[in-house]
Amino acid sequence: MKEVMAIIRMNMMNKTKLALVDAGISSFYAKECLGRGKGTVELPHYLGGGEEQYESMIDELGIVGRIIPKRMINVIVPDKLVKTVVNTIIGINKTGRSGDGKIFVMPVEETWRVRTGESGDDILDL
Amino acid sequence: MKEVMAIIRMNMMNKTKLALVDAGISSFYAKECLGRGKGTVELPHYLGGGEEQYESMIDELGIVGRIIPKRMINVIVPDKLVKTVVNTIIGINKTGRSGDGKIFVMPVEETWRVRTGESGDDILDL
Amino acid sequence: MKEVMAIIRMNMMNKTKLALVDAGISSFYAKECLGRGKGTVELPHYLGGGEEQYESMIDELGIVGRIIPKRMINVIVPDKLVKTVVNTIIGINKTGRSGDGKIFVMPVEETWRVRTGESGDDILDL
Repeated sequence: MKEVMAIIRMNMMNKTKLALVDAGISSFYAKECLGRGKGTVELPHYLGGGEEQYESMIDELGIVGRIIPKRMINVIVPDKLVKTVVNTIIGINKTGRSGDGKIFVMPVEETWRVRTGESGDDILDL
Repeated sequence: MKEVMAIIRMNMMNKTKLALVDAGISSFYAKECLGRGKGTVELPHYLGGGEEQYESMIDELGIVGRIIPKRMINVIVPDKLVKTVVNTIIGINKTGRSGDGKIFVMPVEETWRVRTGESGDDILDL
Repeated sequence: MKEVMAIIRMNMMNKTKLALVDAGISSFYAKECLGRGKGTVELPHYLGGGEEQYESMIDELGIVGRIIPKRMINVIVPDKLVKTVVNTIIGINKTGRSGDGKIFVMPVEETWRVRTGESGDDILDL
Protein backbone atom coordinates (compact mmCIF):
# COMPACT_ATOMS: atom_id res chain seq x y z
CA MET A 1 0.00 0.00 0.00
CA LYS A 2 0.98 3.61 -0.52
CA GLU A 3 -0.01 6.99 0.81
CA VAL A 4 -0.46 9.57 -1.91
CA MET A 5 -0.09 13.03 -0.36
CA ALA A 6 -1.01 15.96 -2.55
CA ILE A 7 -0.57 19.65 -1.76
CA ILE A 8 -3.04 21.56 -3.91
CA ARG A 9 -4.74 24.96 -4.16
CA MET A 10 -7.41 25.61 -1.54
CA ASN A 11 -10.08 26.20 -4.15
CA MET A 12 -9.36 22.91 -5.96
CA MET A 13 -10.31 20.61 -3.10
CA ASN A 14 -13.89 20.05 -4.13
CA LYS A 15 -13.06 19.32 -7.77
CA THR A 16 -10.27 17.00 -6.69
CA LYS A 17 -12.58 15.10 -4.39
CA LEU A 18 -15.17 14.66 -7.13
CA ALA A 19 -12.53 13.53 -9.61
CA LEU A 20 -11.22 10.93 -7.16
CA VAL A 21 -14.74 9.63 -6.51
CA ASP A 22 -15.29 9.43 -10.28
CA ALA A 23 -12.07 7.41 -10.51
CA GLY A 24 -13.39 5.00 -7.90
CA ILE A 25 -11.42 6.34 -4.93
CA SER A 26 -13.88 7.17 -2.19
CA SER A 27 -11.83 7.41 0.99
CA PHE A 28 -9.34 10.12 1.90
CA TYR A 29 -8.31 12.66 4.51
CA ALA A 30 -7.85 16.39 4.11
CA LYS A 31 -5.85 18.88 6.13
CA GLU A 32 -4.96 22.53 6.01
CA CYS A 33 -1.35 23.56 5.57
CA LEU A 34 0.85 26.41 4.50
CA GLY A 35 3.09 25.85 1.53
CA ARG A 36 6.16 27.59 0.27
CA GLY A 37 7.76 26.86 -3.06
CA LYS A 38 10.09 28.70 -5.34
CA GLY A 39 7.24 30.18 -7.33
CA THR A 40 5.92 33.70 -7.18
CA VAL A 41 2.94 34.30 -4.94
CA GLU A 42 -0.51 34.54 -6.39
CA LEU A 43 -1.75 37.65 -4.71
CA PRO A 44 -5.36 37.54 -5.89
CA HIS A 45 -5.62 34.06 -4.46
CA TYR A 46 -3.67 34.87 -1.36
CA LEU A 47 -5.80 37.89 -0.55
CA GLY A 48 -9.01 36.00 -1.11
CA GLY A 49 -11.39 34.93 1.64
CA GLY A 50 -11.15 31.98 3.92
CA GLU A 51 -7.59 32.45 4.96
CA GLU A 52 -8.19 34.46 8.11
CA GLN A 53 -7.34 31.55 10.34
CA TYR A 54 -3.87 31.49 8.89
CA GLU A 55 -2.95 35.00 9.78
CA SER A 56 -1.06 34.13 12.93
CA MET A 57 0.81 31.31 11.20
CA ILE A 58 1.65 33.58 8.31
CA ASP A 59 3.00 36.13 10.77
CA GLU A 60 5.24 33.48 12.27
CA LEU A 61 6.45 32.33 8.89
CA GLY A 62 7.33 35.88 7.93
CA ILE A 63 5.41 36.17 4.71
CA VAL A 64 7.83 37.28 2.06
CA GLY A 65 5.63 36.79 -0.93
CA ARG A 66 5.81 33.07 -1.26
CA ILE A 67 3.88 31.47 1.62
CA ILE A 68 0.35 30.50 0.67
CA PRO A 69 -2.38 28.56 2.39
CA LYS A 70 -2.86 25.22 0.67
CA ARG A 71 -4.86 22.08 1.16
CA MET A 72 -3.30 18.69 1.73
CA ILE A 73 -5.21 15.61 0.67
CA ASN A 74 -4.04 12.14 1.68
CA VAL A 75 -5.24 9.02 -0.09
CA ILE A 76 -4.13 5.55 0.97
CA VAL A 77 -4.47 2.94 -1.76
CA PRO A 78 -3.11 -0.43 -2.88
CA ASP A 79 0.03 -0.11 -5.05
CA LYS A 80 -1.89 -0.81 -8.24
CA LEU A 81 -4.05 2.31 -7.75
CA VAL A 82 -1.24 4.80 -7.13
CA LYS A 83 -0.97 5.75 -10.79
CA THR A 84 -4.74 6.29 -11.01
CA VAL A 85 -4.69 8.60 -8.01
CA VAL A 86 -1.64 10.56 -9.23
CA ASN A 87 -3.07 10.96 -12.74
CA THR A 88 -6.47 11.99 -11.40
CA ILE A 89 -4.99 14.64 -9.12
CA ILE A 90 -2.69 16.00 -11.84
CA GLY A 91 -5.49 15.94 -14.40
CA ILE A 92 -7.83 18.07 -12.35
CA ASN A 93 -5.26 20.41 -10.75
CA LYS A 94 -3.00 21.20 -13.69
CA THR A 95 -3.53 24.79 -14.77
CA GLY A 96 0.03 25.31 -15.99
CA ARG A 97 0.53 28.16 -13.54
CA SER A 98 2.96 28.16 -10.63
CA GLY A 99 1.33 26.88 -7.45
CA ASP A 100 -0.55 23.94 -8.95
CA GLY A 101 0.98 21.78 -6.26
CA LYS A 102 3.02 18.66 -5.67
CA ILE A 103 2.34 15.01 -5.04
CA PHE A 104 4.40 12.66 -2.90
CA VAL A 105 4.06 8.88 -2.67
CA MET A 106 5.08 7.16 0.57
CA PRO A 107 5.09 3.52 1.66
CA VAL A 108 2.42 2.25 4.06
CA GLU A 109 3.17 -1.07 5.75
CA GLU A 110 -0.05 -1.89 7.59
CA THR A 111 -3.66 -0.72 7.61
CA TRP A 112 -6.31 -1.48 10.22
CA ARG A 113 -10.06 -0.85 10.40
CA VAL A 114 -10.87 0.11 13.98
CA ARG A 115 -14.53 -0.98 13.83
CA THR A 116 -13.70 -4.62 13.10
CA GLY A 117 -10.03 -4.97 13.96
CA GLU A 118 -9.41 -6.19 10.39
CA SER A 119 -6.13 -5.50 8.61
CA GLY A 120 -5.08 -5.37 4.96
CA ASP A 121 -6.03 -3.93 1.59
CA ASP A 122 -9.68 -4.84 2.07
CA ILE A 123 -10.18 -2.14 4.69
CA LEU A 124 -9.36 0.66 2.27
CA ASP A 125 -12.98 1.41 1.33
CA LEU A 126 -12.35 1.18 -2.41
CA MET B 1 10.87 2.61 14.05
CA LYS B 2 7.36 3.13 12.80
CA GLU B 3 4.80 5.90 12.72
CA VAL B 4 1.35 4.73 13.74
CA MET B 5 -1.19 7.19 12.32
CA ALA B 6 -4.76 6.79 13.53
CA ILE B 7 -7.81 8.68 12.29
CA ILE B 8 -10.40 8.55 15.06
CA ARG B 9 -13.59 10.27 16.21
CA MET B 10 -13.11 13.77 17.63
CA ASN B 11 -14.69 12.85 20.94
CA MET B 12 -12.41 9.81 21.43
CA MET B 13 -9.15 11.72 21.60
CA ASN B 14 -9.00 12.05 25.36
CA LYS B 15 -9.80 8.41 26.03
CA THR B 16 -7.28 7.35 23.40
CA LYS B 17 -4.59 9.48 24.99
CA LEU B 18 -5.26 8.03 28.43
CA ALA B 19 -5.26 4.47 27.06
CA LEU B 20 -1.90 5.07 25.35
CA VAL B 21 -0.41 6.50 28.53
CA ASP B 22 -1.74 3.47 30.46
CA ALA B 23 -0.02 1.28 27.86
CA GLY B 24 3.26 3.08 28.50
CA ILE B 25 3.19 5.31 25.41
CA SER B 26 3.59 8.88 26.55
CA SER B 27 4.60 10.83 23.47
CA PHE B 28 2.47 11.63 20.46
CA TYR B 29 1.19 14.36 18.17
CA ALA B 30 -2.39 15.26 17.33
CA LYS B 31 -3.88 17.09 14.36
CA GLU B 32 -7.28 18.02 13.06
CA CYS B 33 -8.44 16.58 9.76
CA LEU B 34 -11.50 15.90 7.68
CA GLY B 35 -12.21 12.31 6.80
CA ARG B 36 -14.33 10.70 4.18
CA GLY B 37 -15.04 7.01 4.00
CA LYS B 38 -17.67 4.87 2.39
CA GLY B 39 -19.78 4.86 5.55
CA THR B 40 -22.94 6.81 6.20
CA VAL B 41 -22.57 10.10 8.01
CA GLU B 42 -23.28 10.34 11.71
CA LEU B 43 -25.44 13.42 11.81
CA PRO B 44 -25.71 13.81 15.57
CA HIS B 45 -21.97 13.82 15.78
CA TYR B 46 -21.53 15.95 12.72
CA LEU B 47 -23.93 18.59 13.92
CA GLY B 48 -22.38 18.69 17.37
CA GLY B 49 -20.29 21.52 18.73
CA GLY B 50 -16.66 22.29 18.13
CA GLU B 51 -16.71 21.92 14.39
CA GLU B 52 -17.29 25.55 13.51
CA GLN B 53 -13.76 26.02 12.32
CA TYR B 54 -14.32 23.40 9.67
CA GLU B 55 -17.19 25.11 7.96
CA SER B 56 -15.13 26.64 5.21
CA MET B 57 -13.28 23.39 4.56
CA ILE B 58 -16.55 21.48 4.49
CA ASP B 59 -17.88 23.97 1.97
CA GLU B 60 -14.87 23.36 -0.22
CA LEU B 61 -15.18 19.60 0.06
CA GLY B 62 -18.80 19.79 -0.97
CA ILE B 63 -20.38 17.99 1.96
CA VAL B 64 -22.52 15.20 0.58
CA GLY B 65 -23.21 13.39 3.77
CA ARG B 66 -19.95 11.64 4.25
CA ILE B 67 -17.33 14.20 5.24
CA ILE B 68 -16.78 14.40 8.96
CA PRO B 69 -14.28 16.21 11.14
CA LYS B 70 -11.91 13.69 12.69
CA ARG B 71 -8.82 13.72 14.82
CA MET B 72 -5.50 12.32 13.69
CA ILE B 73 -3.09 11.04 16.28
CA ASN B 74 0.48 10.13 15.36
CA VAL B 75 2.64 7.95 17.56
CA ILE B 76 6.23 7.10 16.67
CA VAL B 77 7.52 3.96 18.37
CA PRO B 78 10.14 1.24 18.03
CA ASP B 79 8.95 -1.70 15.88
CA LYS B 80 8.32 -3.90 18.91
CA LEU B 81 5.70 -1.48 20.25
CA VAL B 82 3.62 -1.12 17.08
CA LYS B 83 1.29 -3.96 18.01
CA THR B 84 0.74 -2.46 21.48
CA VAL B 85 -0.17 0.91 20.00
CA VAL B 86 -2.48 -0.59 17.35
CA ASN B 87 -4.25 -2.82 19.86
CA THR B 88 -4.62 0.01 22.36
CA ILE B 89 -6.15 2.34 19.78
CA ILE B 90 -8.51 -0.33 18.45
CA GLY B 91 -9.46 -1.41 21.96
CA ILE B 92 -10.56 2.03 23.06
CA ASN B 93 -12.09 3.24 19.77
CA LYS B 94 -14.02 0.17 18.62
CA THR B 95 -17.73 0.81 18.96
CA GLY B 96 -18.75 -1.42 16.07
CA ARG B 97 -20.37 1.53 14.29
CA SER B 98 -19.23 3.00 11.00
CA GLY B 99 -16.77 5.84 11.54
CA ASP B 100 -14.64 4.23 14.25
CA GLY B 101 -11.61 5.08 12.18
CA LYS B 102 -8.53 3.62 10.55
CA ILE B 103 -4.92 3.05 11.51
CA PHE B 104 -1.93 3.16 9.19
CA VAL B 105 1.63 2.07 9.97
CA MET B 106 4.50 3.73 8.11
CA PRO B 107 8.27 3.30 8.25
CA VAL B 108 10.44 5.89 10.01
CA GLU B 109 14.14 5.78 9.22
CA GLU B 110 15.67 8.29 11.62
CA THR B 111 14.66 10.15 14.76
CA TRP B 112 16.43 13.09 16.37
CA ARG B 113 15.95 14.96 19.65
CA VAL B 114 16.53 18.65 18.95
CA ARG B 115 17.50 19.54 22.54
CA THR B 116 20.53 17.25 22.56
CA GLY B 117 21.15 16.40 18.93
CA GLU B 118 20.83 12.71 19.85
CA SER B 119 19.45 10.18 17.37
CA GLY B 120 17.84 6.75 17.71
CA ASP B 121 15.18 4.83 19.60
CA ASP B 122 16.24 6.33 22.93
CA ILE B 123 14.84 9.73 22.03
CA LEU B 124 11.29 8.43 21.72
CA ASP B 125 10.26 9.33 25.30
CA LEU B 126 8.95 5.84 26.09
CA MET C 1 14.04 11.09 -1.44
CA LYS C 2 13.11 11.63 2.18
CA GLU C 3 10.57 13.60 4.13
CA VAL C 4 12.07 15.38 7.11
CA MET C 5 9.27 16.10 9.59
CA ALA C 6 10.15 18.37 12.49
CA ILE C 7 7.97 19.23 15.47
CA ILE C 8 9.21 22.53 16.86
CA ARG C 9 8.14 25.41 19.11
CA MET C 10 5.51 27.70 17.63
CA ASN C 11 7.70 30.76 18.00
CA MET C 12 10.63 29.14 16.18
CA MET C 13 8.92 28.71 12.84
CA ASN C 14 10.12 31.93 11.28
CA LYS C 15 13.75 31.45 12.33
CA THR C 16 13.63 27.85 11.13
CA LYS C 17 12.31 28.92 7.75
CA LEU C 18 15.01 31.54 7.33
CA ALA C 19 17.71 29.07 8.37
CA LEU C 20 16.46 26.54 5.81
CA VAL C 21 16.42 29.17 3.08
CA ASP C 22 19.97 30.17 4.05
CA ALA C 23 20.94 26.50 3.74
CA GLY C 24 19.49 26.42 0.23
CA ILE C 25 16.23 24.67 1.08
CA SER C 26 13.41 26.80 -0.23
CA SER C 27 10.36 24.54 -0.34
CA PHE C 28 8.43 23.15 2.62
CA TYR C 29 5.02 22.76 4.20
CA ALA C 30 3.92 23.80 7.68
CA LYS C 31 1.06 22.58 9.83
CA GLU C 32 -0.28 23.16 13.30
CA CYS C 33 -0.29 20.31 15.78
CA LEU C 34 -0.47 19.50 19.45
CA GLY C 35 2.47 17.68 20.95
CA ARG C 36 2.90 15.71 24.10
CA GLY C 37 6.22 14.44 25.35
CA LYS C 38 7.53 13.31 28.69
CA GLY C 39 8.90 16.75 29.50
CA THR C 40 7.45 19.29 31.87
CA VAL C 41 5.20 21.91 30.34
CA GLU C 42 6.49 25.37 29.64
CA LEU C 43 3.76 27.45 31.15
CA PRO C 44 4.94 30.86 29.99
CA HIS C 45 4.99 29.58 26.45
CA TYR C 46 1.79 27.65 26.81
CA LEU C 47 -0.08 30.62 28.20
CA GLY C 48 1.19 32.93 25.49
CA GLY C 49 -0.88 34.30 22.66
CA GLY C 50 -1.93 32.68 19.45
CA GLU C 51 -3.12 29.42 20.91
CA GLU C 52 -6.78 30.28 21.22
CA GLN C 53 -7.74 28.07 18.33
CA TYR C 54 -6.42 25.07 20.21
CA GLU C 55 -8.64 25.42 23.21
CA SER C 56 -11.21 22.89 22.10
CA MET C 57 -8.54 20.38 21.11
CA ILE C 58 -6.77 20.89 24.42
CA ASP C 59 -10.05 20.24 26.21
CA GLU C 60 -10.42 16.97 24.33
CA LEU C 61 -6.87 15.93 25.08
CA GLY C 62 -7.40 16.55 28.76
CA ILE C 63 -4.60 18.96 29.44
CA VAL C 64 -2.55 17.59 32.28
CA GLY C 65 0.40 19.89 32.04
CA ARG C 66 2.16 18.33 29.11
CA ILE C 67 0.17 19.09 25.96
CA ILE C 68 1.48 22.08 24.06
CA PRO C 69 0.68 23.62 20.72
CA LYS C 70 3.58 23.05 18.35
CA ARG C 71 4.38 23.63 14.73
CA MET C 72 5.16 20.86 12.29
CA ILE C 73 7.37 21.61 9.32
CA ASN C 74 7.79 19.09 6.52
CA VAL C 75 10.64 19.29 4.05
CA ILE C 76 11.04 16.81 1.20
CA VAL C 77 14.57 16.55 -0.14
CA PRO C 78 16.90 14.21 -2.01
CA ASP C 79 18.74 11.79 0.32
CA LYS C 80 21.96 13.76 0.11
CA LEU C 81 20.33 16.83 1.67
CA VAL C 82 18.75 15.11 4.68
CA LYS C 83 21.74 15.75 6.91
CA THR C 84 21.78 19.43 5.94
CA VAL C 85 18.10 19.81 6.81
CA VAL C 86 18.42 17.93 10.11
CA ASN C 87 21.50 19.91 11.17
CA THR C 88 19.91 23.20 10.17
CA ILE C 89 16.75 22.51 12.17
CA ILE C 90 18.69 21.31 15.22
CA GLY C 91 21.10 24.25 14.97
CA ILE C 92 18.40 26.89 15.06
CA ASN C 93 15.99 25.17 17.48
CA LYS C 94 18.35 23.81 20.12
CA THR C 95 17.95 25.82 23.33
CA GLY C 96 18.83 22.94 25.65
CA ARG C 97 15.43 23.18 27.34
CA SER C 98 12.74 20.52 27.28
CA GLY C 99 10.35 21.07 24.38
CA ASP C 100 12.90 21.90 21.70
CA GLY C 101 11.25 19.29 19.52
CA LYS C 102 11.92 16.16 17.51
CA ILE C 103 12.78 15.34 13.94
CA PHE C 104 11.71 12.25 12.01
CA VAL C 105 12.98 11.10 8.61
CA MET C 106 10.68 9.04 6.42
CA PRO C 107 11.10 7.51 2.97
CA VAL C 108 9.42 9.11 -0.06
CA GLU C 109 9.17 6.95 -3.16
CA GLU C 110 7.82 9.29 -5.81
CA THR C 111 7.39 13.03 -6.29
CA TRP C 112 5.34 14.79 -8.95
CA ARG C 113 4.93 18.43 -9.97
CA VAL C 114 1.28 18.99 -10.81
CA ARG C 115 1.88 21.95 -13.13
CA THR C 116 3.96 19.94 -15.58
CA GLY C 117 3.28 16.32 -14.72
CA GLU C 118 7.03 15.83 -14.21
CA SER C 119 8.36 13.36 -11.67
CA GLY C 120 11.65 13.00 -9.79
CA ASP C 121 14.22 14.92 -7.75
CA ASP C 122 14.16 17.84 -10.17
CA ILE C 123 10.71 18.90 -9.05
CA LEU C 124 11.82 19.57 -5.48
CA ASP C 125 12.43 23.31 -5.99
CA LEU C 126 15.95 23.20 -4.56
